[in-house]
Amino acid sequence: MHDWKVSVQEKKRLIDGALDELIPLVFPEELYRAARYLIEAGGKRLRPIVVLLSARALQPNIEIEQILPAAAAVELVHNFTLVHDDIMDADETRRSIETVHTKWGLSEGILAGDALYAKAFEILSYTLAKPENVTKCLRILSKACLHVCEGQWLDITFENDRRISEAQYLEMVQKKTASLYAAALAMGGILADGIEDEIQAMWEFGLAMGIAFQIRDDVLDLITPYDVLGKDRGSDLVEGKMTLIMIHGLRHGVKLNLSELTAEREIDEAVKTLEDAGSIAYAMEKAHEILDSGKSKIASLTDSEAKEELLKLAEYMISRTY
Amino acid sequence: MHDWKVSVQEKKRLIDGALDELIPLVFPEELYRAARYLIEAGGKRLRPIVVLLSARALQPNIEIEQILPAAAAVELVHNFTLVHDDIMDADETRRSIETVHTKWGLSEGILAGDALYAKAFEILSYTLAKPENVTKCLRILSKACLHVCEGQWLDITFENDRRISEAQYLEMVQKKTASLYAAALAMGGILADGIEDEIQAMWEFGLAMGIAFQIRDDVLDLITPYDVLGKDRGSDLVEGKMTLIMIHGLRHGVKLNLSELTAEREIDEAVKTLEDAGSIAYAMEKAHEILDSGKSKIASLTDSEAKEELLKLAEYMISRTY
Repeated sequence: MHDWKVSVQEKKRLIDGALDELIPLVFPEELYRAARYLIEAGGKRLRPIVVLLSARALQPNIEIEQILPAAAAVELVHNFTLVHDDIMDADETRRSIETVHTKWGLSEGILAGDALYAKAFEILSYTLAKPENVTKCLRILSKACLHVCEGQWLDITFENDRRISEAQYLEMVQKKTASLYAAALAMGGILADGIEDEIQAMWEFGLAMGIAFQIRDDVLDLITPYDVLGKDRGSDLVEGKMTLIMIHGLRHGVKLNLSELTAEREIDEAVKTLEDAGSIAYAMEKAHEILDSGKSKIASLTDSEAKEELLKLAEYMISRTY
Repeated sequence: MHDWKVSVQEKKRLIDGALDELIPLVFPEELYRAARYLIEAGGKRLRPIVVLLSARALQPNIEIEQILPAAAAVELVHNFTLVHDDIMDADETRRSIETVHTKWGLSEGILAGDALYAKAFEILSYTLAKPENVTKCLRILSKACLHVCEGQWLDITFENDRRISEAQYLEMVQKKTASLYAAALAMGGILADGIEDEIQAMWEFGLAMGIAFQIRDDVLDLITPYDVLGKDRGSDLVEGKMTLIMIHGLRHGVKLNLSELTAEREIDEAVKTLEDAGSIAYAMEKAHEILDSGKSKIASLTDSEAKEELLKLAEYMISRTY
C-alpha cells in the first residue's frame, strides 16, 4: 500500500537539505545566522511540499532538481513573512524559540526578513526549466508576495474592529495566507509544463487549501497549549484579531473583554464561551466546506500518487493538532 | 550639440510616468498610498536612468518598452530600501516630507517597503526580452538586494565603532549602495544583449559609480542645509555613522563628541573641524579616484551618445550639491 506520510516526509527531508545548503553562513555571518534562525527551528514545510506534489501530479517523472529551487523559494518567502509579521504583532516566541527581532533587535529582524525575501528570488533564478516558465513563476510568486502584504495590512486594520464581516475575513485570509499556497500549487504546475486549465485548477485548489489551513490555524491558536503550539495560546484573542470564530461569536452574543485577556484562566474562559456558542465548530465546518469545494477543482486531473498525497495532505491541514 | 542634460531629463520623465502607472491605488488603497508616497515625493531616478543608458550604450536602437520595466524595478528596490532604512535609522524626514513609518506607523512602514519589494520583481517579470535575459536580470537584481541587506547590516554594526577602517567602510558601501548601481548597469547590458565582457565592464563601472555616489552623499549630509537636502543635516554624525570622512578625521586627531551633536551650532563646529583636518577634501579625492578607475572599465566600449551621457551623469553624481 502507498504510504503517503512516508512519501511526504521524504520530500520534507529533501527540502530541509536544500534550505540548509541554500543559505550559507557568509559575511556578515550574523545576518545569515538571523536569517537561518527560524528556518532551522523547524516548520512543517507544507508550502514547498505542495510545490513538489503539484509538479509530480502533472508530470510524475519530473526530476526533483527541476522543482526543488522553486519549492525552497516558496518556503523562504513564507519565513520572511513570519519574521516581519512577528515584528508587527510584537510576538516574542514562535516554534518554541524567541522570534528573530526579540533575539537580535528590530532593525536586525527587518533585515533578516528582507534578506530571506531576496534569497527566495535569487534561488528561483536557478530553476532548471524553460526560461519562460521561470518568468511565469517569478510573476506568480511576486504577485503572491504582494497579496500577502495586502492581507497582512488588512489583518492589522481589522484588529479590534467588531464590524468585520465573514466576507471581509475570508478576503483577508485569501490574501494573507491562501495566495502563497495558490502560488505554490501553480508554480508546481508551471514547472511540470501543465496546460493553462491544469495550472488554474491547481491555483484554485491551493486557494481553498490555504483558507482552510488558516481557519484551522485560528482554531489551534485557541485550543492548543504552548508546549505543543510553540507560541502563546490565545494570542489572537489578546491581539484582537478578527477570526471567523470571533466574528461568529460576536454575532451570537459572546461578550469578550479582549484587552484584559492576559491570564491563562481568562483565556480558558473566553475559549469556553466561544465553544459553547458553537463558534469553533462553525469555523471548522466552514473550513471543510471550502476545502471540499477546492478538491473538486482538481477532481478531473489524472489520478496519481502525487495527486493522492496532495489530497491527503489537504485533509491533514484541517485535522492537524499543531 | 548633444545636450546630455536634456536627454537625461527626458528619460527621467519616462521613468516617472512608468512608476506612476505601475503602482495603481488598488484595495487596500491605504497600503498603496503608503507604498507610492516616497516615490511621489520625487527623487533623482539615477538608478533607473543608468539602466536605460547602459542598454542604449550597447544597443542604441533598443526600444524603450524593452528596458523600462527593469529600470522601474531598480527604482522600486531603491525606494523599498529607503523605507526600511528610515525605520532602522529612526529618520523622520526624507525628500522634505515625513518618512513612511513616521506618517503611517512601524508595521505600515515595514509593509509598504515589503510591497515595493514585491512590486519590483513583479514588474521585472513583464520585461519584453528573451526569457533567459529576464532570468539573468532576476538573479542580478535579487543578489543586489541581498548585498544591500548585508551592507545595511554592516552600516548598523559599524555605528559608533571607531575601529572601523577605510577598507571596511568601502566594503560596506560597495554592498549597501554600489551593488544596486552595478546591478542597474549590468541589467541594462543584459537586456541590450551585450556580450559577457561588456556586461562585466558595465557592472564594474556601476560599482565605482555607486561608491563615488555614496561618498558624495556622505559629504552632502555634512555640508547641505535642510531646505536643500530634504533631510536633517549632520544626521550621520548624530547617528554615529562611520563614513570615510569620519574615519579620516579620527585618524587625524579630530575629537567628536557624537552623542551630544544635536544643536545646529554644534554640527557646524564638527563639520568645521572635519574640514580643517582635510577629511572632507580627502573623501572627495577618494571619490574621484574610484570613479576614474571605474570610467576606465568602459573606455573600450564603442562611443555613443548614451555612453557619453553615462560618463557625464557619473561626473554629476560626485559634483552634485543635493
